[in-house]
Amino acid sequence: MTEITRQDCELMDREDPLASFRNEFELADGLVYLDGNSLGAMPKAAAERASEVVHQEWGKDLIESWNKAGWFQMPEVLGDKIAQLIGAEPGEVVVTDSTGINLYKVLYAALSLNRSRDVIVMEGSNFPTDNYVVQGLVEQMGDQYQLKFVEEDEIFDALSDEVAVLCLTQVHYKSGRVLDMQAITAAAQAQSIVVIWDLCHSAGAFEVDLNGCNADLAIGCTYKYLNGGPGSPAFIFLAQRHHGKALQPLTGWWGHAAPFAFERDYRPAEGILQMRSGTQPILSLAVAEVGLDMFLRADMRQIREKSQRLTSLFIQLVEGRCGEDGFELVSPRDAEARGSQVSFDHENGYAIVQALIAAGVVGDFRAPSNMRFGFTPLYIRYVDVWDAVDRLHEIMRSGLWQEQRFHQRGAVT
Amino acid sequence: MTEITRQDCELMDREDPLASFRNEFELADGLVYLDGNSLGAMPKAAAERASEVVHQEWGKDLIESWNKAGWFQMPEVLGDKIAQLIGAEPGEVVVTDSTGINLYKVLYAALSLNRSRDVIVMEGSNFPTDNYVVQGLVEQMGDQYQLKFVEEDEIFDALSDEVAVLCLTQVHYKSGRVLDMQAITAAAQAQSIVVIWDLCHSAGAFEVDLNGCNADLAIGCTYKYLNGGPGSPAFIFLAQRHHGKALQPLTGWWGHAAPFAFERDYRPAEGILQMRSGTQPILSLAVAEVGLDMFLRADMRQIREKSQRLTSLFIQLVEGRCGEDGFELVSPRDAEARGSQVSFDHENGYAIVQALIAAGVVGDFRAPSNMRFGFTPLYIRYVDVWDAVDRLHEIMRSGLWQEQRFHQRGAVT
Repeated sequence: MTEITRQDCELMDREDPLASFRNEFELADGLVYLDGNSLGAMPKAAAERASEVVHQEWGKDLIESWNKAGWFQMPEVLGDKIAQLIGAEPGEVVVTDSTGINLYKVLYAALSLNRSRDVIVMEGSNFPTDNYVVQGLVEQMGDQYQLKFVEEDEIFDALSDEVAVLCLTQVHYKSGRVLDMQAITAAAQAQSIVVIWDLCHSAGAFEVDLNGCNADLAIGCTYKYLNGGPGSPAFIFLAQRHHGKALQPLTGWWGHAAPFAFERDYRPAEGILQMRSGTQPILSLAVAEVGLDMFLRADMRQIREKSQRLTSLFIQLVEGRCGEDGFELVSPRDAEARGSQVSFDHENGYAIVQALIAAGVVGDFRAPSNMRFGFTPLYIRYVDVWDAVDRLHEIMRSGLWQEQRFHQRGAVT
Repeated sequence: MTEITRQDCELMDREDPLASFRNEFELADGLVYLDGNSLGAMPKAAAERASEVVHQEWGKDLIESWNKAGWFQMPEVLGDKIAQLIGAEPGEVVVTDSTGINLYKVLYAALSLNRSRDVIVMEGSNFPTDNYVVQGLVEQMGDQYQLKFVEEDEIFDALSDEVAVLCLTQVHYKSGRVLDMQAITAAAQAQSIVVIWDLCHSAGAFEVDLNGCNADLAIGCTYKYLNGGPGSPAFIFLAQRHHGKALQPLTGWWGHAAPFAFERDYRPAEGILQMRSGTQPILSLAVAEVGLDMFLRADMRQIREKSQRLTSLFIQLVEGRCGEDGFELVSPRDAEARGSQVSFDHENGYAIVQALIAAGVVGDFRAPSNMRFGFTPLYIRYVDVWDAVDRLHEIMRSGLWQEQRFHQRGAVT
């Protein structure tokens, strides 16, 4: 294989049909930001939108903005935009609350569709907060339900007529491995199991086809690949065929059939709207729309193609230029089986990630040894991949990572 | 009684020790904003803070801001600031999620402190979303619990040894009537009942003394009198003596004992921190701190004194100048028993409120006939009260409210 040069990468950038999107993001000169799978970069228009919400909608129009600025409709309006990215129809998605709160809602809703069964199956190595949410509900319900952890190669074997709900994250947060949504959903549904998909590392990273897979319920966040801003509200998908049947228990005014009638008793709103609970953080919600609007102008197939080329290039360069440095690829080598991230294991992973950050290459670290790099096709260039590996190479060659300062752990990595 | 003039009100404003706070808010010229009990006005510094979060913390520092900008600590830091306004100690309050989600958490936590009992008592005419939250949990738990609605004059009689939890809103959303937190808490606790106080219309409106009343649990919002911004996250108070005993079921990474250890299984964080669930909307959360900081510079006794004078003046002027127009006072005439709002019933209340809004006096309407006016002492002047009633008088005198346009109902009032 011919050695790849920075010039080759520049050429790829010149031919990149998505290249112009990078200018729409705020990114410091020299920064190689490979952590968009944790917190997406800021669309410049997000700052304008935040200013508009604060100065005009809150500052000037005040309470009137619930109508005039469409605050009240935002959960549905943003939901319909996300629907276009994940293979859902209008009226099947709503943006509200956090991913964890939403998982709680859809888990209860899913269990209510399958009342004669009591087992919930999850992947034990999944992002832990999903486990915690399910464990919270199981304990609350007085051991009515039983949570069974399996790993990837045990999923199909775990599908039995005792299982009520299968709850999986499509892209593994550490390895970036993509599960086969179509095959797993079909196999589960053949056993009358209701399936929940967590799309936190899928939405905006590649095309998701929920309805094409006959999905039941899904959740996901908006602050990773969708660039919605720190902690921006999350989304819920509920397939049309379950509307009115799968209800969630966090019942508040915004999920009521007549939210302004001030009725004493709860009556669920129709369709997806029942998945709402209380008042939403309008500023964070409004700003999240900016990232979504950008995606509606982008071609998701081009995004996926570039994502695969970026991640493959990164693997090729790390293995080519740092091949003797002890990095072990954790992500699938097959680009089709990989999300938009690449992870390497390294026994000194923490210190190396810290040294990279000091050198302007931001990735992240997940204990005990996982170095994680996210590649967001809308703003990552091929030269960024080259520069990242070039700096990694230099850090390993010079032994810079061994400096004491890179071994001191902070609260958040 | 001598007739009050606008000049009298101007004099009161000149002598008002809180007068300078008004300049710190964004308020349009000529606007009389009497809806701060629904959405507080914007502190000018909130716009600066929003810009800082967006441009610097998200835009430039990105993921690093979890440490550098203190995002991770914000729920506790803001909680400790609210604690100072409601008679709580540091470490007893956390800011997170919505009021409704928080009520769900504290209700479950309260029930877990009183496992041998099964009755929950609430005020039926309370703000409905509180009822909906409790009804959702009751239904979810398979009728393990029984919800009993009473009205104000039945509260004491309803306290029996079957009651597990008494859940009350201190200030009634329609009438502004203040319940006696001290007496009710004591009477309930004498029967070993755990008490939840909803402080949505209390926090920032007057001094609340939770620990002085030996309160168990409380919740409240930050976007009304605390001026946190539309839908800004809510708060939870859990008395120190219940820490580690009263746990909540919406378990996520942010309430875990070791949130960055990525452990498979949930372990609750200590103290108030277990009341956290998932990732919070950082932009809305950060901006909410600005309103809190303003309160820490204000004297809450002066706030209460001015609030009582403003609301008494409003009642006096409405009854004096519009005495023949059919307004019936709903709020307590005794200022001590009244929050920072005044409500009048009027059979044409909807149209009159709309006509007032068109005339630059913003109050709100609650079905079927309740006209609600909130008085926020940090930015409402005595002349504002005079001008509001002057415009109301003119609307009634001229019959302006009878115009068709004021009778068409929008989605949100």
